[in-house]
Amino acid sequence: MKHISLMGATGSIGTQTLDIIKEHPSEFKLVAMSVGKNLELTRKIIRDLKPELVSVSEKSAANDLKAEFPHISFTYGEEGLTEVAVYHRADILVNAVSGSIGLTPTLNAIREKKTIAIANKETLVTAGHLVMEEAKRNQVSLLPVDSEHSAIFQALQGEKEKNIERLILTASGGSFRDRTREELESVTIEDALNHPNWSMGAKITIDSATMMNKGLEVIEAHWLFSMAYDRIDVLLHKESIIHSMIEFHDSSIIAQLGTPDMRVPIQYALTYPDRLKLPSAKRLNLAEIGKLHFSMMDLDRFRCLKFAYEAGKAGGTMPTVLNAANEAAVAAFLDGKASFLQIEDLIERALSNHNNISNPGLLEIQEVDLETRKYVNSVL
Amino acid sequence: MKHISLMGATGSIGTQTLDIIKEHPSEFKLVAMSVGKNLELTRKIIRDLKPELVSVSEKSAANDLKAEFPHISFTYGEEGLTEVAVYHRADILVNAVSGSIGLTPTLNAIREKKTIAIANKETLVTAGHLVMEEAKRNQVSLLPVDSEHSAIFQALQGEKEKNIERLILTASGGSFRDRTREELESVTIEDALNHPNWSMGAKITIDSATMMNKGLEVIEAHWLFSMAYDRIDVLLHKESIIHSMIEFHDSSIIAQLGTPDMRVPIQYALTYPDRLKLPSAKRLNLAEIGKLHFSMMDLDRFRCLKFAYEAGKAGGTMPTVLNAANEAAVAAFLDGKASFLQIEDLIERALSNHNNISNPGLLEIQEVDLETRKYVNSVL
Repeated sequence: MKHISLMGATGSIGTQTLDIIKEHPSEFKLVAMSVGKNLELTRKIIRDLKPELVSVSEKSAANDLKAEFPHISFTYGEEGLTEVAVYHRADILVNAVSGSIGLTPTLNAIREKKTIAIANKETLVTAGHLVMEEAKRNQVSLLPVDSEHSAIFQALQGEKEKNIERLILTASGGSFRDRTREELESVTIEDALNHPNWSMGAKITIDSATMMNKGLEVIEAHWLFSMAYDRIDVLLHKESIIHSMIEFHDSSIIAQLGTPDMRVPIQYALTYPDRLKLPSAKRLNLAEIGKLHFSMMDLDRFRCLKFAYEAGKAGGTMPTVLNAANEAAVAAFLDGKASFLQIEDLIERALSNHNNISNPGLLEIQEVDLETRKYVNSVL
Repeated sequence: MKHISLMGATGSIGTQTLDIIKEHPSEFKLVAMSVGKNLELTRKIIRDLKPELVSVSEKSAANDLKAEFPHISFTYGEEGLTEVAVYHRADILVNAVSGSIGLTPTLNAIREKKTIAIANKETLVTAGHLVMEEAKRNQVSLLPVDSEHSAIFQALQGEKEKNIERLILTASGGSFRDRTREELESVTIEDALNHPNWSMGAKITIDSATMMNKGLEVIEAHWLFSMAYDRIDVLLHKESIIHSMIEFHDSSIIAQLGTPDMRVPIQYALTYPDRLKLPSAKRLNLAEIGKLHFSMMDLDRFRCLKFAYEAGKAGGTMPTVLNAANEAAVAAFLDGKASFLQIEDLIERALSNHNNISNPGLLEIQEVDLETRKYVNSVL
């Protein structure tokens, strides 16, 4: 029986993690969770799964819930997030929050020797070197939950990292794959939130439309698999059936495939190195699908991906700026304060405005993160 | 340095195995080989790679070669084949002959604890239970060389057999994929030998056209991976890029991909569990290929595949009959004594004419093999 602590329980990855826990009650137990502002869903999860510790956003909500569920511990805010991350009864932390807010709790959980199932790519983008160093020092496993990184992780089992020629991340192309840059000038929030293959949270869906999501994944792959940026390629594959691939030195490629269903990589991270049945998953039927399509990624069409490669290669605090500027710009777009194409302009300005700091510590990263958000909001 | 004994050195798999040995002179040494009737090529290989023992078909050829290469040992015939298979200086036997003639030498090599790299599927089809029992008893590894089985073997690394839901063998469809059964009535030997993706020997190319090759592979997969027949599926995939796949219980699929190049699986069998560079291999470029196609296998269109499933499920000597009838029928077709569609009729007649023997020993298998060939030739 694995005891699970879950950050971001009411989000898209969070609720699917809970589905997996419910599907295997003799394998997994939810012991702690953090939630967002959806208190109705929070109450339902508490009744269903009876976690021991729950962290909410606001103190008032913690007080209200405590009155309703007196046997459960409640906490709140950023400190509450870390309390959930390091909860003493948890074996695994599933980090399914969105944004660099996941960084500090993750570092603390690693120090407490928790295995980390990481869906929160911004944590690795903003401070990958700190997270990987801490994981190495504490001999803690980082298990990827993103479908692309889970695919690579699955393909890598039984193989040696020294034999890898390159990683090939597949990209569906997001909501606007088939639109020209001219057509992007007038797209709406609603258009951008309509992803062709995956049903996900708002931030990652916008990141998919700008291709920044793939950029963040390139940086995440760089850290998770110690891979140089010029050995990480991105391939357009609109059906999202091949989730990613590894090419080895002998030209052999191992790929992981499946219908687009996040429960599969989530469950794999929880059962690793074993697998469990997942009867409710839709089996892949390639004969029914008939064709899989592939095409080159165009870095001029998808400028955010180019920014990500550049920031990743520059290293230092550049990935922190890339991520914070993107978080701020996407929030502005979702608030109606910026147009879709302004997202990449804002990121570009933030990157060129920044003086890179090499090998930054946690405090420097947090400062740069904050400054970048301020900068983006100031030039809106 | 691995010492290699190679049965079938002048055939298609044989010459490609020699290419791999030549590409990695510090890793591999050819110590023994058997050849067919191509003595010019045999001389060239002897001069290039200086094996210690060479087996030819005829005694006269052995004598001629001995006069030319006095420092090398020569032998001949079926006994010569076994001498090569068990050669004391070899670590690995690459069995790249065609037909059930490979069975006895393989069993003998297993008893001498040689690792077996097996390209000779007929050996596993005709007597899979004997080969697997002997391999288990002697703790010998059977490493697949067929591209499909190598794909499954590669996909299986780091995974547990208990978690497999099914194997999915891909099939290009062979030379006549797009022809109706009516159109098959008048096809020529030349048409049949024109495979769209793979350049291979005559027997396997005809087997690909009849789809018997995939049938033999289903039986081979049954033995190599201890998989029930109803958990081995065949999928038409005309580009031969995905070489085969494993679906696990959680619906995740691991696949192996590459350009159609037999040197990749051959080299993998020789380097396993490691990999080596293969700079001369053409890298897969999926963006250039653009599309991969998949469709259902039609067992009425490809009757030989149906026969193979039926013979495999029946077990006993039925797979021996299937294989021997196919070998005899394909030889008759290549000799101009039978039409293309007669191949499957001859196999069907041989199967329905046979009284199955359960759990047969080697002698029974050899008898049934011989009788079946006689039967097919008698009804031609």
